[in-house]
Parts: sequence; structure tokens; C-alpha cells
Amino acid sequence: MNKPFKKVALIGREGVTGVKDTLKTLHDLLKNKGINVVMSEITAEAASDDILEKQTDLIIVVGGDGSLLQVAHLAVEHDLPVLGINRGQLGFLTDIYPDDLQKVEAILEGHYTEESRFLLQIEVRENKNLISQHVALNEVVLLPGDLAQMIRFEIYINDDFVCAQRADGLIATTPTGSTAYALSGGGPIMHPTLNAIALVPMFPHKLSSRPIVIDNNSVIDIAITTKKITPHVSCDGQKRVSVPMDATLHIQKYQKSLKLIHPSSYDYYQTLREKLGWEAH
Amino acid sequence: MNKPFKKVALIGREGVTGVKDTLKTLHDLLKNKGINVVMSEITAEAASDDILEKQTDLIIVVGGDGSLLQVAHLAVEHDLPVLGINRGQLGFLTDIYPDDLQKVEAILEGHYTEESRFLLQIEVRENKNLISQHVALNEVVLLPGDLAQMIRFEIYINDDFVCAQRADGLIATTPTGSTAYALSGGGPIMHPTLNAIALVPMFPHKLSSRPIVIDNNSVIDIAITTKKITPHVSCDGQKRVSVPMDATLHIQKYQKSLKLIHPSSYDYYQTLREKLGWEAH
Amino acid sequence: MNKPFKKVALIGREGVTGVKDTLKTLHDLLKNKGINVVMSEITAEAASDDILEKQTDLIIVVGGDGSLLQVAHLAVEHDLPVLGINRGQLGFLTDIYPDDLQKVEAILEGHYTEESRFLLQIEVRENKNLISQHVALNEVVLLPGDLAQMIRFEIYINDDFVCAQRADGLIATTPTGSTAYALSGGGPIMHPTLNAIALVPMFPHKLSSRPIVIDNNSVIDIAITTKKITPHVSCDGQKRVSVPMDATLHIQKYQKSLKLIHPSSYDYYQTLREKLGWEAH
Amino acid sequence: MNKPFKKVALIGREGVTGVKDTLKTLHDLLKNKGINVVMSEITAEAASDDILEKQTDLIIVVGGDGSLLQVAHLAVEHDLPVLGINRGQLGFLTDIYPDDLQKVEAILEGHYTEESRFLLQIEVRENKNLISQHVALNEVVLLPGDLAQMIRFEIYINDDFVCAQRADGLIATTPTGSTAYALSGGGPIMHPTLNAIALVPMFPHKLSSRPIVIDNNSVIDIAITTKKITPHVSCDGQKRVSVPMDATLHIQKYQKSLKLIHPSSYDYYQTLREKLGWEAH
Repeated sequence: MNKPFKKVALIGREGVTGVKDTLKTLHDLLKNKGINVVMSEITAEAASDDILEKQTDLIIVVGGDGSLLQVAHLAVEHDLPVLGINRGQLGFLTDIYPDDLQKVEAILEGHYTEESRFLLQIEVRENKNLISQHVALNEVVLLPGDLAQMIRFEIYINDDFVCAQRADGLIATTPTGSTAYALSGGGPIMHPTLNAIALVPMFPHKLSSRPIVIDNNSVIDIAITTKKITPHVSCDGQKRVSVPMDATLHIQKYQKSLKLIHPSSYDYYQTLREKLGWEAH
Repeated sequence: MNKPFKKVALIGREGVTGVKDTLKTLHDLLKNKGINVVMSEITAEAASDDILEKQTDLIIVVGGDGSLLQVAHLAVEHDLPVLGINRGQLGFLTDIYPDDLQKVEAILEGHYTEESRFLLQIEVRENKNLISQHVALNEVVLLPGDLAQMIRFEIYINDDFVCAQRADGLIATTPTGSTAYALSGGGPIMHPTLNAIALVPMFPHKLSSRPIVIDNNSVIDIAITTKKITPHVSCDGQKRVSVPMDATLHIQKYQKSLKLIHPSSYDYYQTLREKLGWEAH
Repeated sequence: MNKPFKKVALIGREGVTGVKDTLKTLHDLLKNKGINVVMSEITAEAASDDILEKQTDLIIVVGGDGSLLQVAHLAVEHDLPVLGINRGQLGFLTDIYPDDLQKVEAILEGHYTEESRFLLQIEVRENKNLISQHVALNEVVLLPGDLAQMIRFEIYINDDFVCAQRADGLIATTPTGSTAYALSGGGPIMHPTLNAIALVPMFPHKLSSRPIVIDNNSVIDIAITTKKITPHVSCDGQKRVSVPMDATLHIQKYQKSLKLIHPSSYDYYQTLREKLGWEAH
Repeated sequence: MNKPFKKVALIGREGVTGVKDTLKTLHDLLKNKGINVVMSEITAEAASDDILEKQTDLIIVVGGDGSLLQVAHLAVEHDLPVLGINRGQLGFLTDIYPDDLQKVEAILEGHYTEESRFLLQIEVRENKNLISQHVALNEVVLLPGDLAQMIRFEIYINDDFVCAQRADGLIATTPTGSTAYALSGGGPIMHPTLNAIALVPMFPHKLSSRPIVIDNNSVIDIAITTKKITPHVSCDGQKRVSVPMDATLHIQKYQKSLKLIHPSSYDYYQTLREKLGWEAH
């Protein structure tokens, strides 16, 4: 058994059906158990550094995988574990249903599994200067500002030249992200505990291009060689920034990890089977 | 043997290396043969309706497949055949090299193959109102304004509901376009003479989505059901227009076809083998 | 309304659960309607030429798509329409469930849709000599006797050389077969009414190999150039014959078509959505 | 600089063009350098345990990747490093050309890179009994005796149920094998140093099936649930054994690794670019 949780921050997401109801139900459930509910808000913006640093030992997110992705960045910075309650569809990250809240009680009492999920750190560099810096739990996507234009770029791994590509873009995904956007793009499923990063070309001009899986201690540089267009970079499908021509994306494992909480009954492969429809006839 | 060509419009493309030299060489070659060169310009915009309608019986384009796509629309409207001279890489549409211009002489004398390539007509409709109308020789692409957002849409073929999809977008391609963008997206190669249209989903959320090939007499409606974003439509990678929410793309075979001229020695499969690298060991 | 059916042959398939019960129920239903049940057997072998030629105007098959494929060859030779009743899983060809037999009544009275599905004719030739001849409704598969060995072969379409390939094999599929084995191999879905054949390479050595879709009036020759192994040919997953080294497979549209009967409510795309799981969330 | 090699076994492969010439040239080169050539044979069978154990500190294989795969098993058992000289096409494992033998001289003097490549151990088990045991450097393939038949099997990883599949077969590949057969089947490229195994379904019935990449410390069990057919197992495309119905394949990392020798100039990504045609326009 793990250490019980005593101080919980509840965070929802505006616009997701049923989130308010579930927040209310959770709030009552926690209060009844004598848990200190340090905040219960529809938006992550209400979570001040002060609250998270001093008064919280667990964040519970109510929403979908997207909601958890948003909160994950906060949680990682404050080294706080996160538990996801999904609304609607089963998620890979939010694996408790709203009608299954007794699982939350067991977790609060210390009956849970804690997984460590690594993140990617992305630096946008121009002539050795750092332009901007980002963190992603799922994936970084290099994409054109205008989809009708291919991007030309070169991939380097640990300073070794890998290849020059013309493509709609490139996805660098963690195992956590391998069942998200990268999967639609033909990337492999990677078990969450695998220490690997996959590079998945998007609509590559060269038909023999394939996803490449490398150790997550590798340092990846994507040098943009397109002359006419200004590509964009998107992290976890949320942030989207434009990138100067001649920029380089410098990607490596982030120094901090996400602590993801699951009920003891958590079964990764069952989630996989359900989400991918492997169980239907 | 076909009818010889007597009145030729030469069109190049600004910014493509070597185009001016090839235009000049062609101009001299044509003059020497007593051909009436009705225009010789670096840009298609110089081609007035008057010149094309009354004074021209062949358009020669110097550039790449992209240049020919631009001119194709002009040629189709004026029912004029087009011959493509490529600069640089071999193209699927521009299959004569600049150092092989004696093939042009033979063509002018009537030794050529004329192929008919059908086009797609796209109407953007909102509540039965026609918003805009477009024509494509290669493909129509439905894509989000912001790639990080999936589009939701429904596909109808001849008024039959096919499926609802969540995807980065959808490509509707002719056989001519099947070796262009759609091929990078996992679409099949379709022989240019096949009377078919392929619908290729882009990064579909549902992993069991597959390209669908249907008769080119089909009428395709793509009803956009996304609420938050304004998708775009791109034709032949050139025009790009934004589409109102709740719009429908109404796609069918265009009434006019492109007359594409090839040297007698033209071999579609050879182009395929060269472009796709099938001949390397 | 179509012509009602009066003389029906009932055929089942040994070893498929529930087939006998459904045959019995159908037999009673037909008798009650005054239909002449010319045979009702668990096996197609009982269907003599005499019965099929003179006494039958409809064959009803009870089983799965595999059962219908077996009977299809008989039906085509005798120019008889076929109706499929599936047991268990929904099929693409057998689209009436056993608990939905009132649809059969409507069909017998003339309320049905008749589709024409073309077949492939395959000749195995060695030095211009005909070694054997086969017919397939779904697909022809060229495969090695020993899977660990790649086959080398050359593809010709209408006597034009297409390419040389090294692969585990090759599938030539009709639209009818495009949702069967070829779909697992990465082939496109082709609408049943499309006049096309797709060639789908199996595990090709050349990564830029792609399915090719051509007009179904094309003549395809597959020249086997492997020296060491004796490949096999399989039609509709049922017949399997070994092929001499240096043989050529000569493939074209068969002269006769299958008449496939559907209830009036038949909806191809609905079957597609159900079988491919497109409707799940 | 590494330790120089003094005692070398030369092994070729019967039937590969030019092998005898290269063996002769190598033999002379080695003798001139004062190297003890303990054997120089066209076949690995001549390599007695005695020679390999006591008298050899390097095996040089002349042939292709297939030749090296054969010898690899010998080399692993005797803990000897292997160097591959290819004849004809560039290989992923045999990366010195016959006209580049000065690289061999440098290697003998100690200028080389030694890579450790892990192998897979496969046990065929029936009711807990060990039926046979195999080792593979590239991949294990489960396949039907008769390709026309799908196999049904269940995958377990570290005793967790992953999924039940119906497919033509399954490939379990090391990073070394990821650029061989598994790549044709849609598997990802894995860098040779990655500690991972990929499971690649072959022509899966379920269209949402995808390759799965897991840690190479995982234990994989493939329980065969097909009733009618006797599947086969093939290791490195060479050994092929039939497997009892109800058998389980028990797959894990082999305890010993292959020591693969490369010239100092070795560049994995360059081999990748050349072999996959990424450098052509």
C-alpha cells in the first residue's frame, strides 16, 4: 500500500459535459472522507503556485485526455501526482469513469499504482540562440503554417545525420503519445514503460520513409531547410508557435517526469483493446 | 499520325531554374520549323482569352507538374491540348526533358499520343447556396485551418450515407492525382484511364478507416459537422479557400477534360518505376 | 418489382453452427409459401447439373461469406441468382440474419435488388501451354509454397511491363474481394459496382510498392521468375494449386457474372460500417 | 584502439557469386599480415567446435546478410566477434565491399567498432513441456502451414493478456531484424542499440491492429488457439519447424549477445539511407 493522500486539488475543464456535476460529487466524497480539498475549479488557471506547492499532495482532473494533458504540465513542475476521471469516452490517461468513484476512495487510502511517464523538452533554436522552450507529454508536431506546402527538414540523432525529408511534417512522440496522434499517422504503439521516442513522418514524399524508434536518451535535432514558409510547432495539440525559417528543433527527454496515478485494477492492455476496438467480433 | 500543330503558346513559370533558357531554345526551334509562336511568356497570366481562343492549337508548358497544373485549368476552358517540358525532376505530367527537344519536333509534326484526363468540380455549398466553385485535375483536399484540430465530417456518395469521420482531413483524388499528394497519404495508384475517384482519409481517428475507390460518375458530398473550426479547401495544392462551418463540399466529375499530349514513346509504367524508385536494386 | 422465385435450391455448409436449423426453418417457410424446394442439403455437392439447370431459379446459401464463395462458382456456371443467409457474423455477401427470414419471403415475392458481380478468370500457363484454369469471385493470390521465401515475379498489364517485384506474394482482387483478404494486406476498398481490379503486393521488398487499381477490361500477366521455389495459386481462399517455375498467371475478367440477390433494404455502406467497426465511438 | 585480431576463421557461402574469389583474396591478405587463418571454407559446417573455441578470435563471413545470420548462431555460442564482407548488394550486417578490403586490414589492427546485438530465444511449449528451442538474431515468425488459412492466437506480455488475433501470422523482431522482414510487414525501424522488441501482426483481420514495441526484458507468450491447422515457426528465415496445435511460443531475450564488428567509419544511418533509397531525388 502507498501513502494515503490528504490534500487534493480538483480541476475540471470548461465546456466538457458533466464536469461540474462530477466535480461536485467528488468534492462531497472527499469532504466526507475528511480530505482537505484545497481547490475545486472548472479551470486550471485557478491553481496558484502557492496552493500547489504547499497545500496539495494530489491533483484530480475531471475531463478527457486533453484535460489531463493541460494539467500535466502544472503537475510536473510541482512534482505532484495526477489522477484522471474521464467524462464520456474512455481515455488512455483518464481511466476512471464518473460512475466508478469508489475507485477514487480506494486510491485516496493508498491503494493505487503510480506510473512515471517521461516528457519531451523542445527548444526552438535559431543560430544557436534559444527562441522558445516547450514541454510535451504526448508529442511534438512540426507542421507547415499552410498544409498545402511540404516542409523540407533534416533529422539528426546524437549529432549523426539521419536523413533529409520533404513531408507535411514530423511527429516526435513519447510512448504516452504513441496511442494518440502518432497512431493515426502510422506510428507503432509503444508500451508506456518503454524508454523510447518514435519519429513519425507525416505524408512523406519519399514512400520508403518509415517511423523510427530510438532510445529516449537520444538528442534529436530537426533542422528546417524550407525557404519559403514558416512552419509551426505544436505540443500536445495545445500550444502552437510559429518557428523562424532556418530554425532547429532541439528535442530531448525532459528532466522531470509525470507521476500518473491509476487504480490498482489498472490494465493498460485492456484500455488498448477497448479504445482500438480489438474486442469486437 | 495526328494533325500537326501550327500555332503554339509557350508558357513558363517564374522562379524555376532554367525555364527562360528552355523557352528561348523552344522558341527558336519552333520558328525554324515555321510554327506560329503566338506567345512565349514566363507566366500564364499573359495568356489572354483572345490569344488562346483564336490563335492557338497547342500550349507547351515548361516547368514541373505544378506548372502544368496551373496551365491545365486554362487549357481545359479553351479546349486546348497541353504538352509539358520538365525542368529538373521527371514529372508525371511533364515527361519531356529539356535535352530531348527533338521529341517536341516529332510531336509538332503529328507524332504523339493524346490522353484525356478527367477533372473534378467542387462546389462549396451552405444551406443549398453556392458559395464558391473550383476545378481540380489532381485532387481536392479538405483540411483544417489549424492542423492541431481534427475535422468532423460525413461522407455521402450518390446521396447514400457512407460514414462519419474525425480526421485531419480528406483527399478526393482523380487517377491523375493518385500519384501525387494522395499517394503520400496511403491512397492506391490508379491508372490514368480508370474511371474512378478515390477518397483518402488523412490521419483518421478510426484506425480501420481505409481509402475508398468509386466510379467517377458518382456524386460525393462531404458535410462538415465540426462546430469550432473553419476548415479550408485546397485544389491541386494551389487554390486554398476557407469554408463556412456547416458547409458541404459537393464533388463530381467536371464536364470538360484535359487533353494531355505525350511523345509516341510515352510509357506510363516507366514513369511510375522511375519516380517511385522501383528500379533500384 | 422483380419476377418472383418459384423453384429454390437450399444449400448449407457442413460444420457451421446452426446451419441445419436454419435450413429446416427455411424449408418449412418455403413450403408454406408453395415454393418448390428442389433440394435442401448440407453440401453443395448434392447439387446435380440436372437439378440446377432445369428445376431451379434461385439458390439460397446458408452459412458465411465462405459458403457463398463455394456456391457462387456453381451459380455462375448455371446463370442462377444466389441469396446468402448468414449464420453468426454479418457477411459482405450473406446479408440476411437467420432471425430475419421474413426478408426472404419478400425476396421470393419479387421485392429484391439484383447485383451483378464480375469474377476473375486465371489461366496458369507454361510456355504458352495452358496448365490449369480457375475462376475467383474475391481474389487470386500468388504465394510461395514456403512463406520464408520471397517470390520474384514480373507484372504486365495489357502486355506493358509494369514492374519486377520481390515479395511474399501478390493479390489480384475484384471489388467484391476488396473487403476480404486484400483489405488486410493494405488494399483499398472498391465499391462493388466499380469496373476495376486491384493488384496488392504482399510484404513487398521494395518499400515504395503500392496497390495499383486498373480497369477490369485489362489483361494481367504475372510472370514468375523465381528459380528455386514452386509457388502456389489460391482462388477465393479455397482452391490451392502449385504452379511450375517459369509459369505465367494470365488473369482477366471472366465472361460470366454472379447475380447476387439482396433484400430491398440492402445498404452496402451500412455493412461496411458494421464490419469495419466505423460506428463505435 | 581495440585489441588486434590474430586468429581468424574465414567462412563463405556456397552458391553466392564471387565468394570463392573474395575468400582467396582475403586469405592472401591475412597471410601477408601474419594472421593465423584457422580455416577458410565455403561452408560454416567445416567450423568445428574445437577450431572455434581454442584457435579463433574473429570470424569473417563473406556473403550477404543471410550468410551472416547463419554464422551468427555459431559465433554467439562461442562468444566470438563476427565481421561481414558483402558480395553484391550492401547489407545491414555485412557492410564492407569486396573492393574495400583495406578496411579489413585496419580492423585486424584494432581499428574497429564492436556492437552488441541481442538475440531472441524461442521455446515451443505444449502443456508446459518444452518441444523445441530456437535462437534468432533478426526475427521469429509464426505462420500457417497453409497461407490460405488464418491463424488464431493470443498474445501475453509478462503474463498480461494483450489481445486475441486472427492473422496470417505474427513477427517478433529485434532492432537488428527491424530493417529486414518486419519492415516489409509495416513494422517500425528500431535503432540497433534500442532495448526493445516489436510485435508485428501479418495481414491482421482486425484493421485496427498495429505493431507494438515493448522492452526487451519482457517475456512474450503466443498461445495458438487455432484448431484446424498446424502452424509453423521460422527463425531468421532459415529454420522452419511445425508447431503442435495448442502450443505456446515462449519468447524472450537470449542470454548471450552477438558481437558485430564494423569498420571505424561505420554509419548506421548511411546504410539505412542507401538501402531504403532515401537519397535518390
